[in-house]
Amino acid sequence: MIAEIIAAGSEMLTPFRQDTNSLFLTAELNDLGVQVAFKTIVGDNLDHLTAAAAIAIGRADIVLFSGGLGPTQDDLTREAAAAALHLELHPDPAILTALYKRFAARQIAMPPNNAKQADLIDGATLLENKNGSAPGQYLDTVVNGLRKIVILLPGPPKELKPLFAEQVKPRLAATLPPRFLAKRQLRMALIPESQVDARTAPIYTQYPDVETTILAHSGEIQLHFLCAKPTLAQAQARVDQLTERIEAEMDDAIFSSHGESLEDIVLLNLGLRNLTLAAAESCTGGLLSQRLTAIPGSSRYFLGGAVVYSDALKTAFANVPPETIATHGPVSEETARALAQGIRLRTGASLGIAITGIAGPTPGTGPDADKPIGLVYIALADANHTHVKQLHLQGDRERIRHWSSQHALELIRQHIL
Amino acid sequence: MIAEIIAAGSEMLTPFRQDTNSLFLTAELNDLGVQVAFKTIVGDNLDHLTAAAAIAIGRADIVLFSGGLGPTQDDLTREAAAAALHLELHPDPAILTALYKRFAARQIAMPPNNAKQADLIDGATLLENKNGSAPGQYLDTVVNGLRKIVILLPGPPKELKPLFAEQVKPRLAATLPPRFLAKRQLRMALIPESQVDARTAPIYTQYPDVETTILAHSGEIQLHFLCAKPTLAQAQARVDQLTERIEAEMDDAIFSSHGESLEDIVLLNLGLRNLTLAAAESCTGGLLSQRLTAIPGSSRYFLGGAVVYSDALKTAFANVPPETIATHGPVSEETARALAQGIRLRTGASLGIAITGIAGPTPGTGPDADKPIGLVYIALADANHTHVKQLHLQGDRERIRHWSSQHALELIRQHIL
Repeated sequence: MIAEIIAAGSEMLTPFRQDTNSLFLTAELNDLGVQVAFKTIVGDNLDHLTAAAAIAIGRADIVLFSGGLGPTQDDLTREAAAAALHLELHPDPAILTALYKRFAARQIAMPPNNAKQADLIDGATLLENKNGSAPGQYLDTVVNGLRKIVILLPGPPKELKPLFAEQVKPRLAATLPPRFLAKRQLRMALIPESQVDARTAPIYTQYPDVETTILAHSGEIQLHFLCAKPTLAQAQARVDQLTERIEAEMDDAIFSSHGESLEDIVLLNLGLRNLTLAAAESCTGGLLSQRLTAIPGSSRYFLGGAVVYSDALKTAFANVPPETIATHGPVSEETARALAQGIRLRTGASLGIAITGIAGPTPGTGPDADKPIGLVYIALADANHTHVKQLHLQGDRERIRHWSSQHALELIRQHIL
Repeated sequence: MIAEIIAAGSEMLTPFRQDTNSLFLTAELNDLGVQVAFKTIVGDNLDHLTAAAAIAIGRADIVLFSGGLGPTQDDLTREAAAAALHLELHPDPAILTALYKRFAARQIAMPPNNAKQADLIDGATLLENKNGSAPGQYLDTVVNGLRKIVILLPGPPKELKPLFAEQVKPRLAATLPPRFLAKRQLRMALIPESQVDARTAPIYTQYPDVETTILAHSGEIQLHFLCAKPTLAQAQARVDQLTERIEAEMDDAIFSSHGESLEDIVLLNLGLRNLTLAAAESCTGGLLSQRLTAIPGSSRYFLGGAVVYSDALKTAFANVPPETIATHGPVSEETARALAQGIRLRTGASLGIAITGIAGPTPGTGPDADKPIGLVYIALADANHTHVKQLHLQGDRERIRHWSSQHALELIRQHIL
């Protein structure tokens, strides 16, 4: 069974807007064992939309439309789908009544255009939309001797997602061959994708029945595993076996095996060991603190810290001796060490983390004038030791800052382990 | 002239990856007066890709392919486009030689698959790819009596963008009717989209020859204006006239009329008035500082500050009297005021900004226990006054934090004006 997704809406043919519903729909369809073979994006033009619908009905078993179900003249999906199927539209009396009631409750006369939202393709089932006025439609039919399932969904993601989950997925699951899926995810920080692939490919290629996807984000690699079997136990056993072998190979590099973010894991580990953390940030300017405090409940383990962008603040908030900065420069092992120790002392945290570096695009000044853009020092201080890591990062300001915060989080995680 | 963009690649039919090249290509084509009428995303399957190519060549004047030009078996765009056009592929000797030389320089024998990158559709012009090994192709031909322009582009954005800009756009511009475009952009913070539309629609609807697009981002509204005329002066005059009238209507609400971000504008205004800024952040946890320091050169006007997530740090880094916190709570007008004044004094900045609030999802504790999630205080202190703003923000933690930082930036901007 292959599917095509048609996103209807002229705004998605501008440089400003993109179809995102299809990512959600693809994940849901894959769960049901259905591959998406085509995606088409088409504007609010009846001829274009009808032609696209006819092509999709010709080449796919399941056709999903998103958008174009509202009350305006630009909402043409019902008409286009019906025309492509050579079927007619007739108003559904119950929906029509519900629409009139909806407006009556607001003491407004219903504009005549709205009535078209009750138009149903002959033979289709209406899908109630709890989060908007335009209902969806589900049609299981035969075209030229072939079974075709045609599904009309509203465009706004907040309407489409619950409507699909509650009313479309169960219908499709009941009609498609049963399928039991197991999924796992492993996440690693700061390792090149090529290295992860070189070390894990010899393992995952032995599991051709498990679909392995490697995704590289900025400073993070995710391995996604997906397996379908006649029973859930069989699927789960295969995925777990593969995951275990990859965990053994990649070992400490894996920070999460159940989807948690690096920030989640750092905070979780601080909590488990009853530790608190404070940060002194220079080149990252609050990015590390912002990432940690984005997690609900972080206040129990992350106390806060200082954004010591200026040299004076490095002294005022983190006790860095001015002569350390004058001699070695703000971007130096010595300054990083003093920052981590200083912020720890000043805040009373168990651990102090510090980041100082040259994020560019302008070079450093004074004692830092000859240092390269991308030079970053990360320091982590506890009561006994201070560990400093020197980095040479590539890329633009945004990338250098993000990778610096990523290295800081990973340094904390490794230290606690 | 209408265009279709075909993105080739099975990875874009997964839940993980999306075509983004088409946003860039759409903007570039619109510049040339070409509307994009269809976008198709298709996998690495010769039948599917050939069928999609044939449909596109049938319904569009210009067909752009992105991706599928590499050396692997999955790279099928050349074959599919040639088949759909009923044309043949022949290797280009110069490109073939260049490919052999490229591998020889690395002292590797060229794998035979790579030779297919030199295959050229009969009649097409090769487009040199300075950033990768797969060249593009440009074909201006006639199919069934209609002129068709078919363009093959490499998939990686870093290859596609310069190749399009340097080699495709000039070719299209030379062959399409001349068109002179003027563009402007106005940006506003913290105003509801409906209000902007209600106030500006009576003006912009008087300019049907100017295309107006309203985009709502989180806490920001952008108005984009685009006008095409026989001369640049005519186009510019219309856009400037409309922009001026909207500026007069929206007045101070507009923070930027040449595309600058709110952070840019705040830093620019600090610089113009020779002011410095420091921040004390509680619920935003570094987000405001991070946004400001993301701008190159921000260190001249933004000194840094403190992430005062814990109550103790509010006292230690920003001189908030413990009894203020005990009496009024960390989330209170009094604490916000003390934070702004304290961080200003402790850092020696001209202006101190403070943010304290309940970002949720867990409610406040102690004196804050009865305060609602979304209650946020922003305070701005200069040498003479401290202004405090109380907000009731809606939404989840991420939204409340982002809007808080947005309100803080807007408060600074309005204060400096």
